[in-house]
Amino acid sequence: MGNNRDTLIWGIHPILETLKTQPTLITEIFTQERTGSGRLQEIVNLAASHGIPVSRTSRLPSPAGPEPVNHQGVMARLKSLPACELPDLIDVPENSEPTLVALDSIQDPHNLGAIIRSAAGAGATGVIIPKDRSAPLTGAVAKVAAGALNRIRICRVTNLADSLMQLKDAGFWIFGAEGGSGQSLFQADLRGKVCLVIGSEGKGLRPLVRKHCDFLLDIPLAAGVESLNAAVAAGVILFEIARQKALIADQGNKLENPG
Amino acid sequence: MGNNRDTLIWGIHPILETLKTQPTLITEIFTQERTGSGRLQEIVNLAASHGIPVSRTSRLPSPAGPEPVNHQGVMARLKSLPACELPDLIDVPENSEPTLVALDSIQDPHNLGAIIRSAAGAGATGVIIPKDRSAPLTGAVAKVAAGALNRIRICRVTNLADSLMQLKDAGFWIFGAEGGSGQSLFQADLRGKVCLVIGSEGKGLRPLVRKHCDFLLDIPLAAGVESLNAAVAAGVILFEIARQKALIADQGNKLENPG
Repeated sequence: MGNNRDTLIWGIHPILETLKTQPTLITEIFTQERTGSGRLQEIVNLAASHGIPVSRTSRLPSPAGPEPVNHQGVMARLKSLPACELPDLIDVPENSEPTLVALDSIQDPHNLGAIIRSAAGAGATGVIIPKDRSAPLTGAVAKVAAGALNRIRICRVTNLADSLMQLKDAGFWIFGAEGGSGQSLFQADLRGKVCLVIGSEGKGLRPLVRKHCDFLLDIPLAAGVESLNAAVAAGVILFEIARQKALIADQGNKLENPG
Repeated sequence: MGNNRDTLIWGIHPILETLKTQPTLITEIFTQERTGSGRLQEIVNLAASHGIPVSRTSRLPSPAGPEPVNHQGVMARLKSLPACELPDLIDVPENSEPTLVALDSIQDPHNLGAIIRSAAGAGATGVIIPKDRSAPLTGAVAKVAAGALNRIRICRVTNLADSLMQLKDAGFWIFGAEGGSGQSLFQADLRGKVCLVIGSEGKGLRPLVRKHCDFLLDIPLAAGVESLNAAVAAGVILFEIARQKALIADQGNKLENPG
């Protein structure tokens, strides 16, 4: 999101969500129609309450990318996302158990946005994205991520395999999501400092990335179904991690009160 | 998928998947280019081994729908999906614990396809879709569902609320997915005969549909994230159901061998 064309988002829901959760990220809003009632008016009112300028224009700014966008008559310009370096994600308190997500070559902006949203929802603290092998963080991604881009740190790295080695040195377990790997997600211990690696939609994990995984996780599937959508698979694993980490507290309570 | 225009699928992966899992569903394949090596050749070879005719043509058939499709030079014509009526999903053996999914107004073909694929992968036996309020089952859906359309029964109903009542009468528990409903997914008992109801992307469950739910399920989300993508939310819940149902067997073993 390095230039102005890339920092546009559009659509009523993503803009409303961003206004509610992190209004300081928005520098300007553009609306195409005279606002009347409903959620477009809610956007205008919220913007006013935060001192964000709203421009009425017959011609909305044009986002980057080849495809026309369904802007629903409203666009917003974002500040650049705060920079994040790998040490920002690694340097955590001794007993904390952060969850990170690393994306190996996710090309579909819809999937990239949905995974960022799922990661934020499941309480992950950061998403690691290779600079050269992933969909860019355009407005299309921000729209699907629906505000979550503001809730999670996005760290773009040059070499994902190097980053995984640094994470291992810092005590993270590296889990690679790979169908057919044999280790069932639901029988794995996913607690502790964890980095989940998601491969590309068609080809899965690259060999060098797979080599750096401590464990491979397989979502058990019914016979005849070979794989899940990449964003769905990431969501299923991320919430199983969240479920297991919450269980730690439950087990702690049980140990204090042995039956 | 009532007419010929609607029974086309396209793209190398969906067609290869369908050829592998249910070749009898394909009546004809069209390729645009001279096939050489790789996966297109694999399609041609598999088709030949199943006696499916392959036509080379400079002009592929044109699928229904307003948007151009990324066909990757290959299309396939499908037989109509086998008809399914609600009693086909309801009449199950006494002790079986089927999982069904009902979709209330899912409009996005990408999400509809991904949910069907997740449902098949999680071992659900049927998907119930209102005739008038959902994305049609076009090739775009079949492409995302990637073969799973063949592995799960799709039942189109006139009135979803009526169908839920019939399911309740037959002993099914109706779970509605609704963010903010307060009942955490991970604290609910999801075993038994279950029908999971997923609402539309923007508006959630319609009031009349919500009224027929026995329980509402909320995926616990980190602060600041309001919701997940509908297909991701469906996947997370479906695999938690699958996980819990598998646990029954584990618990049975434990009871046989008390510590």
